[in-house]
Amino acid sequence: MTTRKMHLGLSIRALGYAQAPWRHPEVKADGQLDYDSFLKVAKIAESACFDMIFFADNVGYIGGDTPAGSIAYTNRVVELDPLILLSAIAANTRNIGLVATASTTFNDPYQIARRFSSLDHVSGGRAGWNVVTSFNDAEARNFGLEHMPSYDERHERAEEFVQVVKGLWDGWENDALVLDKVSGQFVDPAKMHVLNHAGKFFKVMGPLTCPRSPQGRPVLVQAGDGEPARRIASAHADLVYTAAVSLQAAKDYAASLRGMLAEKGRDSHAVRIMPAASVFVGRTRADAEGKYELMQDLVHEQTGLALVYSRMGDMSDYPLDGPVPEPKYSNSMMQSGARRFYDMAQRDNLTIRQLGRRLGAGTWGRPPVMGTAKDVADHMEEWFTAGVADGFNLTPGWLPHQIQDFAELVVPELQRRGLFRTSYDGRTLRDQLGLAKHRTHWELAREAASAPAGLG
Amino acid sequence: MTTRKMHLGLSIRALGYAQAPWRHPEVKADGQLDYDSFLKVAKIAESACFDMIFFADNVGYIGGDTPAGSIAYTNRVVELDPLILLSAIAANTRNIGLVATASTTFNDPYQIARRFSSLDHVSGGRAGWNVVTSFNDAEARNFGLEHMPSYDERHERAEEFVQVVKGLWDGWENDALVLDKVSGQFVDPAKMHVLNHAGKFFKVMGPLTCPRSPQGRPVLVQAGDGEPARRIASAHADLVYTAAVSLQAAKDYAASLRGMLAEKGRDSHAVRIMPAASVFVGRTRADAEGKYELMQDLVHEQTGLALVYSRMGDMSDYPLDGPVPEPKYSNSMMQSGARRFYDMAQRDNLTIRQLGRRLGAGTWGRPPVMGTAKDVADHMEEWFTAGVADGFNLTPGWLPHQIQDFAELVVPELQRRGLFRTSYDGRTLRDQLGLAKHRTHWELAREAASAPAGLG
Repeated sequence: MTTRKMHLGLSIRALGYAQAPWRHPEVKADGQLDYDSFLKVAKIAESACFDMIFFADNVGYIGGDTPAGSIAYTNRVVELDPLILLSAIAANTRNIGLVATASTTFNDPYQIARRFSSLDHVSGGRAGWNVVTSFNDAEARNFGLEHMPSYDERHERAEEFVQVVKGLWDGWENDALVLDKVSGQFVDPAKMHVLNHAGKFFKVMGPLTCPRSPQGRPVLVQAGDGEPARRIASAHADLVYTAAVSLQAAKDYAASLRGMLAEKGRDSHAVRIMPAASVFVGRTRADAEGKYELMQDLVHEQTGLALVYSRMGDMSDYPLDGPVPEPKYSNSMMQSGARRFYDMAQRDNLTIRQLGRRLGAGTWGRPPVMGTAKDVADHMEEWFTAGVADGFNLTPGWLPHQIQDFAELVVPELQRRGLFRTSYDGRTLRDQLGLAKHRTHWELAREAASAPAGLG
Repeated sequence: MTTRKMHLGLSIRALGYAQAPWRHPEVKADGQLDYDSFLKVAKIAESACFDMIFFADNVGYIGGDTPAGSIAYTNRVVELDPLILLSAIAANTRNIGLVATASTTFNDPYQIARRFSSLDHVSGGRAGWNVVTSFNDAEARNFGLEHMPSYDERHERAEEFVQVVKGLWDGWENDALVLDKVSGQFVDPAKMHVLNHAGKFFKVMGPLTCPRSPQGRPVLVQAGDGEPARRIASAHADLVYTAAVSLQAAKDYAASLRGMLAEKGRDSHAVRIMPAASVFVGRTRADAEGKYELMQDLVHEQTGLALVYSRMGDMSDYPLDGPVPEPKYSNSMMQSGARRFYDMAQRDNLTIRQLGRRLGAGTWGRPPVMGTAKDVADHMEEWFTAGVADGFNLTPGWLPHQIQDFAELVVPELQRRGLFRTSYDGRTLRDQLGLAKHRTHWELAREAASAPAGLG
């Protein structure tokens, strides 16, 4: 019996990470335009005591259109703004955390700081920001650029962006609002600090128009496994969303991140590590496998090929029923998935056509976690007790069915094993994650100044 | 008896346009951080069949800090992101329109197009965007600039910004989503158009990730009375939010706008004209006047002076109980209110101190509409039947009390006179405003091509 509990997030992309759940007879085909569909999903996750829902995002359709015409068959051309969705969901949920991706490449730090702080206020302390750098030329062209800035420049900008956002959030001390009706004093200006940041990418005065939010500041999430991403994570993140494909890869990642945390003087367990997991669970193993097959069967061939080509390069000169050629890494976008996809094809001996079906089922190059509730719980327990995962971000292919399955079958099994909570631990996302309310350096300095002198 | 009905909007700024409603014993002092407070206000307005609520906004605190230390006494240092608030409010209202200000000076057209389209989807067709140019150096310094771009440049940018946003919204034809589960076709690419805009300020490819929204596109609102603002309004707006201080000024504005609409080939009544109105209503005239006095009494002297100085220039060399000197118009920011404020001081023979109290009560330089329900309805009917106003944007100083008063006392009187609806006219904001669903040029061209040949 352990007292350490697992954390669970539900990662959402349209109607699920699979490419064609919208074709399923029980699914509303345009449900991804529908607030009620998303609210239903959030409520299922909240009933199951999940820590958070988590919207991935791109600002533009990144799939391209190879093979020609393939764009007709994808639902990823449609995605609403995730913060608009989360704010509406906040209004009708109470405990579940609300995390959204927002790019540091195509946004402005003042607006991002303000939007996430506002969500933290409106939701009673449940907001999180997933810090990403964009990598797609299709997005760049919506923002005045022909091509993406270089990998290094994007990460340098991201680092400064996060510093500015944190600085704006910390500008307000906890007790800056005086609210004295008799004297008429609303705020103590000495506790409302001007940031006055001037760096390579940004020049931002402040202060923000939002005082300290219920969590001290929103939770900072960082996604992406590369070295610059780990550097940003170790300096700033409360939680990382990783993509480890094996227990060994997860061990390597955790060791590396914890080492970097220690180097930066942070507690080596200060950051919650939550790998993605594509779970297919059934009452029997055959039932689970049937769901995985179904998700693959629904993928239109053009969609499957578009996924392969957009990440690994055009393969129309190769036979579809032949082996997958090694990717050429001609640009940074391909790097982000091509290696994982190629490895999956090698591991399972897949043809190009088969790889497209697999990717289209939403596993994104990771082996799915598949089987009965016991099988799935065994897998999760193994990673959790090995200390390489503090929990998982589920990436169900098909909503709401797959999260419903998980809530009904796996959650009770995890609870029975003492691995997962049976009721919420508080009101804020930081409460669920076991993170203390964020304290600014203003507060820490005040405490240090007023602490009694030490004995030694 | 008329069949033409008045339109009513509720304009919201913190806890009201007055500077110190937070000091009132019945008001939650930090209610402007509180979703429930805003939802309560929205529900009162919706019960009264208002067309819309309307959030003004600045991205930064624009009041400055003259006289020194005055910043301690204002609640305007705190404002949450209006779209975050509106989206949460959307989740628990059904008919009322949801309009927010977003600056064309400090935003990006792709993000703005996406956020407002998303709100239109989430709310079932109730979104509106109030297009403004920012004018304050305090905001500029949050976005990398020392000073604001020139007045002309900001309006030139605004014009192009609106064109891009409209282009992105119109990129999706109405029936672009195919949603054919059998064939797997999700979208018809021929009905999803790339914008490929390249102008002086913006280069934007598109398409947007949001298909046509329930209203065809969100309602476009334009605020500001100057010539460039009217030019943008006559080219693009569905609704204007004006600041006329007298019936004659309202007549002049309406005639000018209608002339510009005709020049542009638009119906001269295509745009709803809705002047701001500060209404103080009571069961007796003395009751109404008492509320106006109370709002003035609550204003801290420093706040009143800060309002005067920030718009009209530092007057600390002048006696506070002497007359208000003529403003010098040293920058474009002062132009936006200084003339109106000076005229108010002249008209009512106010000292500097008294002008501060008046401005702090939220009338913003306009004479308040004050008295019994009959007095207020008489005023509104006069403007409405004169054809210079299609309705009013109320700017109550003190929420929720002043909107509650209006809903209880004035709305029934307007309804009794047949001037205002007794139930909603549909589900979307365009329905309430009597505007047809927006149609794109793609649709109009298709219809023209398939129309039977004319007889003449």
